[in-house]
Amino acid sequence: MKQLEEKILKEGKVLPGNILQVGSFLNQQLDTDFICEMGHEIARLFADEPITKIVTIEASGISIAFAAAAVMHVPVVFAKKSLSANVSGEVYSARVHSFTHGNDFTAVIAKPYLSASDTVLLVDDFLAMGEALRGLIAILDQSGAKLAGCAIAIEKAFQGGGDKLRAEGIRVESLACIDSMTADSLTFRENG
Amino acid sequence: MKQLEEKILKEGKVLPGNILQVGSFLNQQLDTDFICEMGHEIARLFADEPITKIVTIEASGISIAFAAAAVMHVPVVFAKKSLSANVSGEVYSARVHSFTHGNDFTAVIAKPYLSASDTVLLVDDFLAMGEALRGLIAILDQSGAKLAGCAIAIEKAFQGGGDKLRAEGIRVESLACIDSMTADSLTFRENG
Repeated sequence: MKQLEEKILKEGKVLPGNILQVGSFLNQQLDTDFICEMGHEIARLFADEPITKIVTIEASGISIAFAAAAVMHVPVVFAKKSLSANVSGEVYSARVHSFTHGNDFTAVIAKPYLSASDTVLLVDDFLAMGEALRGLIAILDQSGAKLAGCAIAIEKAFQGGGDKLRAEGIRVESLACIDSMTADSLTFRENG
Repeated sequence: MKQLEEKILKEGKVLPGNILQVGSFLNQQLDTDFICEMGHEIARLFADEPITKIVTIEASGISIAFAAAAVMHVPVVFAKKSLSANVSGEVYSARVHSFTHGNDFTAVIAKPYLSASDTVLLVDDFLAMGEALRGLIAILDQSGAKLAGCAIAIEKAFQGGGDKLRAEGIRVESLACIDSMTADSLTFRENG
């Protein structure tokens, strides 16, 4: 998505540790109209799939998931992050390592909100090592829900998580796919 | 908003400690089309105000804030929750007590995303004691931004936070306003 690449070049900041800060439009301030456009693009990419639910993870995945779901007229379910490894009750859960924060958390979804009758699109703002997506996929497996694919705003392809998922046969679509990143330059993958 | 009252009666669960669980449509699973309707209603209620930004707090305020902002074509800024009291860097921050979780956190917004030229609508999913709204109002005060008012999905009026804010001259609009709540019965305020 050309406009997203341009926005990253204009507003993004590369911080130490391979962090790309896009707080001005995606992570703390939300450029509502632009995120709605990204939602339309995600809906267009997955129009051929019989998606019943979008699943994401709090907090910064929620707006883009919601924007796509508003176009597709399906519910969103967002996994909550619990720092405790012991999550009880009627939940699906998976342990996830956070690349950005350098800690582990447990992603949790209450059982009533996912079932074997669901076909799920996973949506998130970033894809780096793929840890969050793998946690969500583990939760889908527990529920029996079918995975239609993953839609990501910004993939940091040089960290490898997206291509590993693709190599396993999972459909991963990124609206912007960064092949290399330094403080001074960003290179996007063609057709990313 | 009659449909919201009906949805609370149909899907809400009252849990010990005055907790109203609405995870099926607002707090973990998001009923996208319905939240978009709530967003339209919030935009209608505040159509007379020159709002430049909607401010909310992660995570469950984001979807309804985004839905209202999509109608109003303004950005959303969401405060992040930090458990540490020592937040450094160029941020506005306020200490908030969480009624639901029984702990304290610091609400944080990076300075570039709020300024004295903003007129802000605060949006949140719940209003009980008003602690989160007061934290956000403290952050607005630090930034010099003007407060247009507060739009809330569900106000638990019997906990008093909303009426205290109104008594101070702050405009607070709730789409559903609960006057009393037990495990067996809910009473809504007229025109709530």
